[in-house]
Amino acid sequence: MAGSIPHSFLITGCNRGIGLELVKQLLAKPHSPEQIFATCRSPGTHQSQELTNLSAKYSNLSVIKLETTDPASVAEAMKEVEKQLKGRGLNVLINNAGIISETTLETVDEKDLLNVYSTNVVGPMLVTKAFLPLLKKAAEENPQAHMNWTRAAVINMSSILGSIKLNAESFLRNPVLSYRCSKAALNMLTNCQAVGYKKDGILCTAIHPGWVQTDMGGPKASLTVGQSVNGILKVLCSLTENHNGILLDWEGKIIP
Amino acid sequence: MAGSIPHSFLITGCNRGIGLELVKQLLAKPHSPEQIFATCRSPGTHQSQELTNLSAKYSNLSVIKLETTDPASVAEAMKEVEKQLKGRGLNVLINNAGIISETTLETVDEKDLLNVYSTNVVGPMLVTKAFLPLLKKAAEENPQAHMNWTRAAVINMSSILGSIKLNAESFLRNPVLSYRCSKAALNMLTNCQAVGYKKDGILCTAIHPGWVQTDMGGPKASLTVGQSVNGILKVLCSLTENHNGILLDWEGKIIP
Repeated sequence: MAGSIPHSFLITGCNRGIGLELVKQLLAKPHSPEQIFATCRSPGTHQSQELTNLSAKYSNLSVIKLETTDPASVAEAMKEVEKQLKGRGLNVLINNAGIISETTLETVDEKDLLNVYSTNVVGPMLVTKAFLPLLKKAAEENPQAHMNWTRAAVINMSSILGSIKLNAESFLRNPVLSYRCSKAALNMLTNCQAVGYKKDGILCTAIHPGWVQTDMGGPKASLTVGQSVNGILKVLCSLTENHNGILLDWEGKIIP
Repeated sequence: MAGSIPHSFLITGCNRGIGLELVKQLLAKPHSPEQIFATCRSPGTHQSQELTNLSAKYSNLSVIKLETTDPASVAEAMKEVEKQLKGRGLNVLINNAGIISETTLETVDEKDLLNVYSTNVVGPMLVTKAFLPLLKKAAEENPQAHMNWTRAAVINMSSILGSIKLNAESFLRNPVLSYRCSKAALNMLTNCQAVGYKKDGILCTAIHPGWVQTDMGGPKASLTVGQSVNGILKVLCSLTENHNGILLDWEGKIIP
């Protein structure tokens, strides 16, 4: 049903930026999701104060500790979410946690390439793999439904900078080499997940949030985080199986 | 000049498969390159016996020890090659060393994703970065020449399995998840190198060798290693700046 909101969300990297704003805008909806699991590395610390304040105010928000690149931490988070879902499935997983580094062809080294790949690719792989049973359960709750976010969906927050086709337009101005390589790989992972999980009724799509005024995007970015997330949520709401495995921007435009 | 052969080559991963065959076919040319540096991890061992035999027979072949993912080993190999080039530049670097692993969405783990990325992406980055001064030197030896392999070129051995656009055609039959993600990232790295090194006159292109009867491709593959390498050398010979940053197969067809 167009416009309806899934029952449950899990969003990674929610202590700031786009993750935090996704939580805020979902909480502010007239029909807010029944359960929102907002994860961050260090709940209860200064870095996640805003999330803590929100969880005190909204009973449908749970803050969950999750280090996306650590399999033990992912397994523990999965157990806690499973317990809180009380036998229901998880409708939407948003792999939002990510990092950027300002490396060029000249300054990049092996540590930087591997570190960025770990957070931006290994993390989404580990989290999706761990939460797959809960996503499958959600998809099975509506076995006749078309693929869309109210049934079950994995959303990977990617970037236009991962598009090889568009690379030459922006590389010299903004090289971020390790980030570009990681996002190209994340777009591939998204496509593999889309093909592999189609039989389970789970939609998998990558989203480019635009150039956003966050700690990552910097103050000169063209979009406020509110504008970006408002657009992203509209796009997610309109996803169908035609969007399985592709990269869309925050306005729903397809990125090659 | 069409058909002419560059003075010098460095090829990684030459103890077997496509790397070894590239060395053999270059040595067999009527006008063989003046210097071929064939690298492998363990020269002088049983695994590289064929390479050792060839180097005893051909004076223009040097076998160089190189662990592509280890910056210290890369630096040492660079020093040795620089010494042997006696002030000349290096015309062609072929980043051929690579690995595959048979992982699926279900079996993949963080170690496998990182390990395959390290060999298939970090290695080509480290080797290209280290040998860049020698490639630049070669490009400067012919400052008026168009970009082609007789001037200076970086060739990354990639794969059609790194093409997101073609992913759905083959993923279920042959998932190799970590390999696909790594090759998508390598195609991005190639494009970044192409854009970044264009000012230096260095051509950067990725090549898909086809499905080849090697240890990696298995005995059922459709091409012999001889057929593949014969095609690859014809393609390399015909590269121009129009091929900068793209992925071509062993017959010269562009892969999206």
